[in-house]
Amino acid sequence: MEVTKAPARRKRDREKLFIVDTDVHHGVKGWTDLNPYLPQVYAERLRDHGGSGPSSQYWHNGGIRGTRADFMDFDDPILSTRRQLLDDCEIDIAILTGSTAYGACTMPDADLGSAICRAFNDYTLEHWVASDERFRVAMAINTQDPLSMAKEIDRIGSHPAVIAIIMPGGATKPYGNRVYDPIYEACERNRLAVMIHFNGEGVGINGPPTAAGWPTHYVEGRMMRAPVYMAHMASYIFEGTFEKFPGLRVINVEAGFAWMPWYLWRMDSDWKSLRYQAPWVKKPPSEYVKDHVRVNTQPIDEPENERDLEQIIEWMHGDRTLLFGSDFPHFDFDDPRQTLTRLPDKLRRRIFGESALESFHKLQPLD
Amino acid sequence: MEVTKAPARRKRDREKLFIVDTDVHHGVKGWTDLNPYLPQVYAERLRDHGGSGPSSQYWHNGGIRGTRADFMDFDDPILSTRRQLLDDCEIDIAILTGSTAYGACTMPDADLGSAICRAFNDYTLEHWVASDERFRVAMAINTQDPLSMAKEIDRIGSHPAVIAIIMPGGATKPYGNRVYDPIYEACERNRLAVMIHFNGEGVGINGPPTAAGWPTHYVEGRMMRAPVYMAHMASYIFEGTFEKFPGLRVINVEAGFAWMPWYLWRMDSDWKSLRYQAPWVKKPPSEYVKDHVRVNTQPIDEPENERDLEQIIEWMHGDRTLLFGSDFPHFDFDDPRQTLTRLPDKLRRRIFGESALESFHKLQPLD
Repeated sequence: MEVTKAPARRKRDREKLFIVDTDVHHGVKGWTDLNPYLPQVYAERLRDHGGSGPSSQYWHNGGIRGTRADFMDFDDPILSTRRQLLDDCEIDIAILTGSTAYGACTMPDADLGSAICRAFNDYTLEHWVASDERFRVAMAINTQDPLSMAKEIDRIGSHPAVIAIIMPGGATKPYGNRVYDPIYEACERNRLAVMIHFNGEGVGINGPPTAAGWPTHYVEGRMMRAPVYMAHMASYIFEGTFEKFPGLRVINVEAGFAWMPWYLWRMDSDWKSLRYQAPWVKKPPSEYVKDHVRVNTQPIDEPENERDLEQIIEWMHGDRTLLFGSDFPHFDFDDPRQTLTRLPDKLRRRIFGESALESFHKLQPLD
Repeated sequence: MEVTKAPARRKRDREKLFIVDTDVHHGVKGWTDLNPYLPQVYAERLRDHGGSGPSSQYWHNGGIRGTRADFMDFDDPILSTRRQLLDDCEIDIAILTGSTAYGACTMPDADLGSAICRAFNDYTLEHWVASDERFRVAMAINTQDPLSMAKEIDRIGSHPAVIAIIMPGGATKPYGNRVYDPIYEACERNRLAVMIHFNGEGVGINGPPTAAGWPTHYVEGRMMRAPVYMAHMASYIFEGTFEKFPGLRVINVEAGFAWMPWYLWRMDSDWKSLRYQAPWVKKPPSEYVKDHVRVNTQPIDEPENERDLEQIIEWMHGDRTLLFGSDFPHFDFDDPRQTLTRLPDKLRRRIFGESALESFHKLQPLD
């Protein structure tokens, strides 16, 4: 495998944005890639029955299974990602957010789900991370199995490239629930952020993707991405999770951001009238968000007048809370060269790099 | 029962806003009030077992079961509503949106649920509507039982005070699904609007209130009101419901409105890239919303700077899409004398009355 060094560009090169891409999807080419990392019983099961676990019931648009075929050589996705994204788009740090292991959280058999997460983490480190020093990893987690996953975090969480865990949006309980505390304790011990990526809503052991059951079309499901982040965000805040784990950072990716001002106002407003029900919430929810929660830019929101995005970013304190993500290599990939180009330079530097460096404990700040 | 005429105030009296309140909660004092209107088998069941159907699992703040005790004489809620709301707040038209029958939609026995809806409708007409000509009714509907409910709409839908049906947010299928078509056909025949009011999410036969299961606290549940309207709105649009029923109007109450600009932009944006999956959607979703969908003001959204509401209302085309609602008599009641007072007079007239008169087929336009 060819290993390259990152191009020597840093903050002082004023002509180039320092870019952290918070959402780069990586995976295996097929389930058998995991075989070397799986217990034999599961390797045989996947060999004989295929990856027949739960999966999304909706069909994407575009490319092959949602992936832009013009970007991706399916025989060598690692090289495609390095060339088409890291090199061509001049990405300095790319956080790998996976694909293969999300379904593990929706399987009835938690042991199998956890084995798949461990195997995918090993595969990621040996194949993706080893190929390019610009890659960082949000390690896979089986949200059904918190105690085992605390051990998994301790097993690989000190690897320098592992900077976060990633959990899918769909779940049987919102993520502020106490059952997840062992995971957050392990994240604090290992200085990892928690990333959330929609996936698994309405799939497998999870309930339907909306309070009104299953929508019909994929496009409707897209509309329900931000709402699941809203549910988790309210849960983290009103369960007092950020009081229990002051080092916890939660990064929500790929559900846009223009819903944030409304949601922060709504939480603050209802906290004022209802905080007697949750006295462990010691300050307005928006204050917790500023200190602990981030969202990314993808898919970019499109007001009728593009200039209105600046107003929205101001309302959401986006100089701190908003991080760039490209969603490479999916059909709605946002190329950083064409994203938020109208914003003032100072704000672009915050969104594309500086805020991410401050938000992940294990990313080095700019010198 | 004392019957009063509406005070003689109309548009030409420039000193007084013409006010349509789109969300006034009414109910029975106890289940036995429904007995005269129920088949004997159900009257006996409620007598012997109580109203033991599904109900919300979360506890409100304030007053008695969420109702402001300072407003309400629980021995005479009708008189309290007429005096404290209609008279004191100078409401010209108050749309009764119920309470008693929402749970009917979440009961395993659809026959019982439909019987409760019919009984509550009769009770409403004989007790509430007969007492004051300012009252209008959003009639109760059992969403589980579309064919029976089409007959119920034909039974009382031509009553001059019946101007809408009302459906709870929680459901087993989103409201654009074809199973509900008989209800919408009956609404078109009877010139009724469809109102949606959150309720029943995660209750009874419905799935959990979020894609991540049940939150812990009531305040978290409040955050999930707008998302269920988002799910229904996407369903109406992407199922082509407004193409099938061009006279259909959908009014979403009590989930605020500052989420609307983002949601309209999001739907329009994804429609552009994914409309090949739903070719019956002939124009951008926001155009359907302008013609067919309304939201109300309650609970009022509270930006850090109150003046920013005007920007949000402009983005959501709020001169057409936003209707006043007070949520009387609940603890977070918005008094019209204290609501959106900073807006320009012309826009206030739209929101507090004119747009409602245009949105409900059976409200008379201003002369």
